[in-house]
Amino acid sequence: MKKAAIIGGTGYGAIELIRLLQSHKEIQLTKIISQSQAGEHLSSTYPHLSGIITKKMESLDLEELEKEIDILFLATPAGVAKNIIPSFQDTSVQCIDLSGDFRLTGEEYSEWYGKEPAPADVLEKAVFGLSDIFTEDIKTASIISNPGCFPTAALSALIPLIDGNKILTEGIRIDAKTGISGAGKGLSEKTHFSTTNENVIPYKIGQHQHIPEIERYASKFAKKDLKVSFTTHLIPMTRGLMCTIYADMKNQETTASILNYLQEFYQAKSFVRILREGIFPTTKGVSGSNFCDIGAYVDERTNSLVVVSAIDNLVKGAAGQAIQNANIMNGWDETMGLEFIPVFP
Amino acid sequence: MKKAAIIGGTGYGAIELIRLLQSHKEIQLTKIISQSQAGEHLSSTYPHLSGIITKKMESLDLEELEKEIDILFLATPAGVAKNIIPSFQDTSVQCIDLSGDFRLTGEEYSEWYGKEPAPADVLEKAVFGLSDIFTEDIKTASIISNPGCFPTAALSALIPLIDGNKILTEGIRIDAKTGISGAGKGLSEKTHFSTTNENVIPYKIGQHQHIPEIERYASKFAKKDLKVSFTTHLIPMTRGLMCTIYADMKNQETTASILNYLQEFYQAKSFVRILREGIFPTTKGVSGSNFCDIGAYVDERTNSLVVVSAIDNLVKGAAGQAIQNANIMNGWDETMGLEFIPVFP
Amino acid sequence: MKKAAIIGGTGYGAIELIRLLQSHKEIQLTKIISQSQAGEHLSSTYPHLSGIITKKMESLDLEELEKEIDILFLATPAGVAKNIIPSFQDTSVQCIDLSGDFRLTGEEYSEWYGKEPAPADVLEKAVFGLSDIFTEDIKTASIISNPGCFPTAALSALIPLIDGNKILTEGIRIDAKTGISGAGKGLSEKTHFSTTNENVIPYKIGQHQHIPEIERYASKFAKKDLKVSFTTHLIPMTRGLMCTIYADMKNQETTASILNYLQEFYQAKSFVRILREGIFPTTKGVSGSNFCDIGAYVDERTNSLVVVSAIDNLVKGAAGQAIQNANIMNGWDETMGLEFIPVFP
Amino acid sequence: MKKAAIIGGTGYGAIELIRLLQSHKEIQLTKIISQSQAGEHLSSTYPHLSGIITKKMESLDLEELEKEIDILFLATPAGVAKNIIPSFQDTSVQCIDLSGDFRLTGEEYSEWYGKEPAPADVLEKAVFGLSDIFTEDIKTASIISNPGCFPTAALSALIPLIDGNKILTEGIRIDAKTGISGAGKGLSEKTHFSTTNENVIPYKIGQHQHIPEIERYASKFAKKDLKVSFTTHLIPMTRGLMCTIYADMKNQETTASILNYLQEFYQAKSFVRILREGIFPTTKGVSGSNFCDIGAYVDERTNSLVVVSAIDNLVKGAAGQAIQNANIMNGWDETMGLEFIPVFP
Repeated sequence: MKKAAIIGGTGYGAIELIRLLQSHKEIQLTKIISQSQAGEHLSSTYPHLSGIITKKMESLDLEELEKEIDILFLATPAGVAKNIIPSFQDTSVQCIDLSGDFRLTGEEYSEWYGKEPAPADVLEKAVFGLSDIFTEDIKTASIISNPGCFPTAALSALIPLIDGNKILTEGIRIDAKTGISGAGKGLSEKTHFSTTNENVIPYKIGQHQHIPEIERYASKFAKKDLKVSFTTHLIPMTRGLMCTIYADMKNQETTASILNYLQEFYQAKSFVRILREGIFPTTKGVSGSNFCDIGAYVDERTNSLVVVSAIDNLVKGAAGQAIQNANIMNGWDETMGLEFIPVFP
Repeated sequence: MKKAAIIGGTGYGAIELIRLLQSHKEIQLTKIISQSQAGEHLSSTYPHLSGIITKKMESLDLEELEKEIDILFLATPAGVAKNIIPSFQDTSVQCIDLSGDFRLTGEEYSEWYGKEPAPADVLEKAVFGLSDIFTEDIKTASIISNPGCFPTAALSALIPLIDGNKILTEGIRIDAKTGISGAGKGLSEKTHFSTTNENVIPYKIGQHQHIPEIERYASKFAKKDLKVSFTTHLIPMTRGLMCTIYADMKNQETTASILNYLQEFYQAKSFVRILREGIFPTTKGVSGSNFCDIGAYVDERTNSLVVVSAIDNLVKGAAGQAIQNANIMNGWDETMGLEFIPVFP
Repeated sequence: MKKAAIIGGTGYGAIELIRLLQSHKEIQLTKIISQSQAGEHLSSTYPHLSGIITKKMESLDLEELEKEIDILFLATPAGVAKNIIPSFQDTSVQCIDLSGDFRLTGEEYSEWYGKEPAPADVLEKAVFGLSDIFTEDIKTASIISNPGCFPTAALSALIPLIDGNKILTEGIRIDAKTGISGAGKGLSEKTHFSTTNENVIPYKIGQHQHIPEIERYASKFAKKDLKVSFTTHLIPMTRGLMCTIYADMKNQETTASILNYLQEFYQAKSFVRILREGIFPTTKGVSGSNFCDIGAYVDERTNSLVVVSAIDNLVKGAAGQAIQNANIMNGWDETMGLEFIPVFP
Repeated sequence: MKKAAIIGGTGYGAIELIRLLQSHKEIQLTKIISQSQAGEHLSSTYPHLSGIITKKMESLDLEELEKEIDILFLATPAGVAKNIIPSFQDTSVQCIDLSGDFRLTGEEYSEWYGKEPAPADVLEKAVFGLSDIFTEDIKTASIISNPGCFPTAALSALIPLIDGNKILTEGIRIDAKTGISGAGKGLSEKTHFSTTNENVIPYKIGQHQHIPEIERYASKFAKKDLKVSFTTHLIPMTRGLMCTIYADMKNQETTASILNYLQEFYQAKSFVRILREGIFPTTKGVSGSNFCDIGAYVDERTNSLVVVSAIDNLVKGAAGQAIQNANIMNGWDETMGLEFIPVFP
């Protein structure tokens, strides 16, 4: 059994890691680290963990971590992991970063995050942990850059279509909808119930930091620099994320043939479900689970394609995929600890 | 003071008409007609109307209506108004139909609604009541075909851009989000709270009967047959409708110049608000009001345009616009009875 | 036409006053005062007011107010109005305070609010503005202490029953449920959407500052010191407040006789609706309106009474009742500017 | 490993049993029985189960069941289980009925359910499966009558207090709040999103069929016929149930002493959590888990007690407790398959 620690213990990402790791057979969570709340019980912030997580949170001690821990999950805000992970690069500790620190080139990171990037040599070692696509690279990685929630949903739908030459790489539009937990635990006007309930709120149109992340990894399969138009909306629900993606077809094809193609592409994957013709993903259909559901419709009137993908932003879009990556890195069954059926209703 | 009747008394459209007409200075609602519930009190279905609407609902009597009524609002399901309105064509009764019966050509109607269309001569007389665009035609109309909720939001954003040659007419994608009241009062899996809450549900992708309506009236301004890709999503809120529209720019322009153009286009209009750069519409920002809010963003990275429009689907998307049309037809101030500020929070 | 000012311009109470006053025939809102945002446009905080409220907010200038204003609404946090209202006591300005500053005796206020009370002589002049009960006193008042949201719903149900000797005054239990807007616009864990959605949260059990307010005015009718048990719950909705009240019957009576009694008690009142047997109030049934709906059930198995009252916490529970009080003070029809039908659905 | 079947395959109770049994180490779900949908895939009704539950639903065949099944879960509407369970009374099949058929005496059942009761001899054998109270009886039972959702929450709080002579048994008031899933999967006005969202709806006041169930088992500990006043409210959330219970203290005691007493009472129980002073249960704090959280407050001003209990109505209030009972009956750890941490946020 391997020992794991979580840094960033009081954010939603950490809380979801804790929930999921509780039933993992090969990972034992031995440390929860929070700089701001070291010494406190997690249940003082999250009463629902009363009697479940009884160890106090600890402060960060790199040397101790290196000695005691096999797997390190970093669920910290942007700009933190890049200063911590370099300390572990010559150790056997497997680092899985849920933040954006290792997802972009240094240049892109500076531009979109407005911060100094991670050291170039460490950045280079990081593998983008889109589990169902980069599975082979993940197997041998020591640093995983866990994808953002929007890129997970968008790329899971886009990459097969680009790779299979099904769509034009110009004019791709991604219309994303996310539950409020996607905005994190911080207090702001946008997370106030009275503002958000009974509301749809578009935000960061054309300026979201997940844009370069989608473009970077989609471009690998397009074999050229691809640009996407990406728009996000806050939806009055807690969890759930949907991308509705619009693209022009390269050739005339039917909905059935696109779905068959996707079905084959993901045949060996446990967590991507291609829905049958006429059925489309819903966010509730994946809630609490690590599934990414994908549906498609070829609009023959306009020869364009609508692909819809849905995930639970905190599971497949964060903590679940991080654990899936840990499973892959360690040669365990990729579904270990993630065998949850969606919670419905 | 003119006398009005509503046919279809127990649907959401009728209930909203009743709410709004309550404070109208020139229209007195004298009859509420419901075939299925004639003789009953409206408050038996809607207890919130106890003590407010005390007249019983009546059955339909065309002759009596013709004698006693000046304005007839039809808030009936598809397929009903087309059989009623012809009886009034040679009378002075102004007919405003909130259903889809008079919005399409006979051929389109047969195809998308699967029903016999209205008689061709009556169909021809009907004016499409998109109040802020077809204002002049409405002034002299005797039959108004009140637009659908999605077409209202979509066309209010699209028509100025097409008319001003700002966007390409190929490749327009409309991603629509609507509250559950848009699905009406009928009981179905899709309106069950436990199915819909904490969920985003795409539906009728590429097959919604509002598609030909959008295309027909956008085409008038494109001066050619235009096709759009249109996708709808149910959102866990009661009221509110948003269209996020994606199009390619015809020329290079900035967000500011597009917003200025829209501002000028709608300068004389009371109910269309063009938001300033960086601010986007929200459904809550128009809730309970007759406003249509529009925001825009030129994505210079992809030379494409994102336009967002938001309405209250039951007000501007149905009953409010119907009253606005009644105001215009009768030469009253178009805001009469519609001076509501959005209800916030 | 009388001129009014609102102090506390950016809270929910002020925003609702602004919404309602928009259609008032005898009150013109000429000043919105906000110490923290003087000089700014209200629409910078509330974009939904764009194009509607175009005057900038102003800072507080007592002398100017006295000269220019007839009615002053104070929608400020606890502890502010008590320092402002004394300046107006020898003027003709009518003061209506929506905060808790004038609702309790000085002693009670110190205990429950933890602040210095208002000067005793000014406190004495203030009339408790429960419009449908203290109508006569309000007519001649110059300072109105507008009731809290919970006391409005609780007392509207309790006072007639106590006054008519229908219930025992011992053992009264009030179980209150409120939408999140009741917690105001401030940011806190309890107003974060992800905390509050899909949740019921009891809070301040036995310790809410509305307890002494309910007891003080109920005691007047009990003619002795009455104590109530009062528990509040946050419900995942924006607006709406319900009190479910439990009491022991004094004598054996039927549901019908209790409802008849209440019906007679409120016969002359426009805004209290007694629902017929078998029908109970819902918060949606009064949403956006100034109604207080009341239903009752005599549980013959336990000879106890369940009374349910529902209001819109921001209308009848705050701004609406404040305007009703202004109407009564000025001899206008008490429904002026408040003729709204509930917004449904 | 024991084999289990579920009868009533498409209701929420069954769906939740399926979700929870998925990870149970000693129970294998081999049959899902639905009379109305035999031969169909469950995923045709519940797409979220695509690829997870692949066996088709079957029709009911009692003989086959008896041969092949060890544990039978009945998640059927009232009136069905009473006709099925008698067939298994002389077999080794363990029957766990989630409906109300075996919870009351025959006489009570006739009165409150309006149906013929189960045969008296079978009724007598059924053990009330309130797992944390009747643990010893459950160990040797062959027929379990799984408690209703409201009685589970209400009795878990009340029984210790009655048993320990802490409260008067007269004047107990239970104010219950439930999410909409409590109303089941059926379509009705009350489950329509537009009716229910932004609303609190009291229903069946004093007439809910869970009243005699609460009274029957509370009376066992009161050692006399006890009556309670019980009121239910629909809350705009999917899952979650809270009982706020009001009672008079027998003696003067502090909140601390009551909490200590409850803590000791439930010391050996895995799924009842007594919260520390000042903290109250929330429905979200138990969501998706089998916990029943209890908090208490002694209101010294009125010498009364407020106890709050919260459960997930579909887990502890139905499927989770059914599995807990199966665990107890079979001598397994009572937490087997139920080790879920609440899903938060």
